[in-house]
Formats: sequence, C-alpha cells, structure tokens
Amino acid sequence: MSTELRTVEWNDGAVRLIDQTRLPHEEIYLDIRDTSVLIDAIARLAVRGAPAIGVAGAYGVVLAAEPRPGEDAAAHLARVDSECRALADARPTAVNLAWAVDRTWSFAKSGGSPEERKVRALEEAERIREEDLELSRRMAEHGLSVLPDPARVVTHCNTGGLATAGGGTALGVVLAGARLGRKFYVHVDETRPLLQGARLNSWELQRAGVPYVVQCDGAAAFALSRFPFDAALVGADRIAANGDTANKIGTYALALAAKAHGVPFYVVAPRSSFDLSIGSGEEIPIEERIADEVRMFRGAASTPTDAPVYNPAFDVTPAHLIEGWITERGVERPPFAP
Amino acid sequence: MSTELRTVEWNDGAVRLIDQTRLPHEEIYLDIRDTSVLIDAIARLAVRGAPAIGVAGAYGVVLAAEPRPGEDAAAHLARVDSECRALADARPTAVNLAWAVDRTWSFAKSGGSPEERKVRALEEAERIREEDLELSRRMAEHGLSVLPDPARVVTHCNTGGLATAGGGTALGVVLAGARLGRKFYVHVDETRPLLQGARLNSWELQRAGVPYVVQCDGAAAFALSRFPFDAALVGADRIAANGDTANKIGTYALALAAKAHGVPFYVVAPRSSFDLSIGSGEEIPIEERIADEVRMFRGAASTPTDAPVYNPAFDVTPAHLIEGWITERGVERPPFAP
Repeated sequence: MSTELRTVEWNDGAVRLIDQTRLPHEEIYLDIRDTSVLIDAIARLAVRGAPAIGVAGAYGVVLAAEPRPGEDAAAHLARVDSECRALADARPTAVNLAWAVDRTWSFAKSGGSPEERKVRALEEAERIREEDLELSRRMAEHGLSVLPDPARVVTHCNTGGLATAGGGTALGVVLAGARLGRKFYVHVDETRPLLQGARLNSWELQRAGVPYVVQCDGAAAFALSRFPFDAALVGADRIAANGDTANKIGTYALALAAKAHGVPFYVVAPRSSFDLSIGSGEEIPIEERIADEVRMFRGAASTPTDAPVYNPAFDVTPAHLIEGWITERGVERPPFAP
Repeated sequence: MSTELRTVEWNDGAVRLIDQTRLPHEEIYLDIRDTSVLIDAIARLAVRGAPAIGVAGAYGVVLAAEPRPGEDAAAHLARVDSECRALADARPTAVNLAWAVDRTWSFAKSGGSPEERKVRALEEAERIREEDLELSRRMAEHGLSVLPDPARVVTHCNTGGLATAGGGTALGVVLAGARLGRKFYVHVDETRPLLQGARLNSWELQRAGVPYVVQCDGAAAFALSRFPFDAALVGADRIAANGDTANKIGTYALALAAKAHGVPFYVVAPRSSFDLSIGSGEEIPIEERIADEVRMFRGAASTPTDAPVYNPAFDVTPAHLIEGWITERGVERPPFAP
C-alpha cells in the first residue's frame, strides 16, 4: 500500500522539493536555501501544482526571513517584504502562491525581531503544509462520495500528491480511494506541452498500483465516445465567483467532450484556489509561456526552430460545463459561500 | 511564390517519396523499388495522408507488376494479386489506399503479358497522380468560396501538399488561396502523437509565406474562445454515408470546440475518401498504433518505459458537427450523391 508523497517540506534549514522536471525517470530531491533559487524552481516547474507551489511559497518566506548579518529590524522588514512580492509573482495564474506567501508573512512580520519573524514564518508555513495534507484528505472523502466503485475516470494534468503537499486534489481522490481498496481505471491525458500527465500521473499511479492508460490529449474526446466513463476529474489554478475555472491548458476541451457524452465533470480544489473577488473567468490572468515548450520536449524538436507559437499555460472552463466543485467543505456550486 | 510539392512521383523505375518522418529538419527523398519497402514506408508514415498514400499505393502496383525472371503470365497474376492485397492492407483506416491499389491493378491486369501489365499499371498510377493534383485544385476552389479574405482558420494534422500528390486538401485550400494573394492566419494544432501539424504544416506554411502559430492540441478550444475564427478546416481518412468522418485523432475534440463557438467546421476531402457502402462512423475500422508513439516525443521519453497506452490513430466526428464536406464537386452534405 502506497502512502502520501513528501512533495515539499522543511528540512534542516532548507526547502526540500522533489524535482518534478526529472520524473518519472529520476527521483531527485532539491534542498533550496535561497529565495531566488526557489523562485527559479517555481518558474521552471521543478515544483508545480497550485497547492504545492503555495506550500513552497510559504517556506520561501522562511528563507527570506533568515536574518542577514548587520540587518536591523526595519531593514529586515523592507527586504523580506520585497522578496515576498517577488516570490508571490513567480507565477501569475494560481492564486494559492500569493495567498500562502501573504498569509505566512502577515503572521511572521508581527514578530519583534528578525529572528522571531523567522521562527513565526516557519510555524505558519508548517501549519499551511499540515492543513494542505488535511485538505487533501477531506477533498478525497467528498470526491469519493460522488463516484461509484469501480469507477472509470479521465483526468488532465497532474493533480496527485505531487501537485500538493502530498495528498492531491483530483488524482488525490483516486489515490485515497485506492488506499481504501476501491477500484479505479484512469485515462491519463498526457497534457502537452510539459506532459505532467504522462510523466507524473503515470509515476504516481504505478506507485499506487492503480491501473491506467496514458492517452494523447486529443484522444480524450474519442475515448469518452467509446468507453463508459463515470467522471472527469481535474484540479484548478483559480476559480472565479461564478464558477468559471482556470486550469491547465486542455481542460476546457476535456470539459466540452465530457458534456457531449453526459459524463459529470468535477473540479477538485481547496478553497484557497477560489478567488471570489473576481466575477468571471474573463478576469483571470492567463500566463503565456515560452515558445520552446511547444517547439520541443526534453530537447527533441518538432517544429522549425523559429516556428511562431501560441502557448497559453491555462484555459478557462465556463461554469455551465462543471457538475460540481469538490472542496474541503463538500460538493459546492455557485454562488459559493464566502 | 511557392508551388505545389512533389510528394510522391515515379522516377526512373522507382517510387520517389519525400521522407515525411525527417521533416521539418531534413528534406530527404527516398527512391523505392520494392513493394515490401514501400509497405514499410507507408506503415512507418514516411508517406502519409489519405490521398498521398493512395498515389503511393498506385505506384506500388507498378513495382509489384515488374516481371520476375522465369515468371509466366499466370504466376505473375497470382503474385501481383497477392502483393496488391498486402499493399492495400498497409494501413486500415484510409479508404484511398485500397481504392487506388484496386483501381490500378484492375486496369493493369487485363494486359496480356507481365510486361504489358506493368506498362498499364504505370499509365493508371500516373493518371491517379494527375487526377489527385487536379482534385486538389478543385477542392481549393470550392473551399475558397466559403472563406472570407482575410481568414483566420484552425487546422488539425497535415493536409497540405504532403498529404496528397502535391496540392492538398484542407491546408491545400489555404496554400492555393495564398498563391492567389489571399490572406490567412493559421492556428496549427501540433497533432500528437506524431506531430504532423508541428512538423509538416509549419514547414509548408513557412515555405508558402503564410503566417501561422503552432499550438498544442489542447489549446485549440481556448483559442476558439479568445480569437475570432472564420473556419476550422480538416481532412478525412474515411467518410461514411451519413457524413460521420474518420480523421486524425484529435479532430473530434476540435469539432466540439468549433461547434461550441459557432465556428463552421469543414471537412475537405476528395470523393475517393467517401465510403458510401457503410452507413455510419460506428462501422469505420479505427487503427490502434503502438504505445511508443505516445510514450515518446521524437525519441524523448515522457512516460515510464512500460506505461500502458491508449493510442487510436483516428477518431470519428459525427456528421452533426460538420458544416460541409468540400470535395472536387463542391460543398456537399448528406445524403451524398453516389
């Protein structure tokens, strides 16, 4: 029986991350002691998944809050404030990163000395990590309540332990169910361009002994037309007040296909992924990433080297395609309680 | 100004093919003198695209019909019959291959001697190639009649000169329009797993000076939600009597997205891609290809090496999602005239 992963944790003065760019072929852990290195790790997706980058960001505040030689309390406050802003901006779409950085630093900055602030930052970051593991457990419980046993599901991008502190959101429901002895068959969208499904879901599902197939993103609609699916399960990077949901590019196409075949499409995400300050998906900023992500994979080029590319990292699935939003509170629907 | 490509032609006793597995980085031509080598080239997609493999198959009959030393007319007939069957079966979904092989051999076999049969096979194969170029010209004319100028279009898989004897089906409309001075902006689905869009459409569009962007297949639905498209244009591998259309995996997802955004979705294909003997898409055989196509991206592995894979090479788009079928005869709709 597999256990939860240790995706992000504090280890002897450093943020320890499993380097997700090296999976599934190498399992390598990074010990990061500097916020600028952590920002780079977040930007190059060594750690990714909205809840996981939240936890990583919280630990980043601890790194920032380490007092520098000769720094007085006022200088410390100004420097850490600035490093926290840079950290919160490392990726623009997921709301969890800014949320976790703000929460950690707000709690820590009331400490009277730099040293005390660092201690408080670590306390709060550890709390965010523990809470995230607990959130995964609750989301899994609510998610399992809407699924039959056995269940055939389709999923997009990685939303397992690697996307969180260790439990998972959408794939976390499957992994928690499998630990309870429930049966699943998972169609894993490979999730171009960075292939988080092919690389990470396959690794997590093999580790957990859950049967699955990897399919090209374009094959999901056809699979839905040929096999009896019970649900589509995806995560979220940001959810607007009306329920419009930003998630990995390709999610919207999967939602359209699920709707066409009457398969319920669920978003599984903690409440920290909701942004009730914005009305609809139109207002969610969508990160566009570099062309080379589409032009190549791990150095193997598909296009001419100078091919122009359209590479939005996320898309927006309109609320009317979504059956329910599975959070730590239950299966919710808009208008969402505050 | 660019010209039509020379994708498949007869050259001094050999079938000459541009090796499409090497594009866009290398432009290499293969001279094939043996049907088993041609069958292998078709199976590994050195030549692909329903009309192009039809023309290649026709020339394959010429290779098969080459008399062997000591072979009498009856032995020749039996051997070529058998080689033609193998050739027609090299790929199962596209109807053009079997159609072209049958047509060429039916015409050739009435020759009294092996030598005469070979001469007749070459005559018929050349006719099929010439006709294919002419079909592309007519499809382009009809396709251009339904598009505005300028036009923003989205396309899936390669359907340009490389997919035919040199003109093209869906992308052929764009290429022919560009030669007439019309303006296009093309969103090219990369078309996993074999990346025909990223590799081949980009090469053809750059060669023709037509502006384009490559996008992941999963990004097409989001692009349709954010930009004003005039049409989606795709080819076909087989069209049933009711209009259900088999084409490269991912086409169905694109058709659902086009429908959701009110963008007309056109299939551009010669009449030889229609199979009026079958009632609906349910009856079209769908080729499943090897797992490594999905496990790898141009040689770079994404999944664990033994990851189970679902890899249908084609899907079926139901007729109700299709605005019109653009053939050499015009813009058709079911029930199709015989």
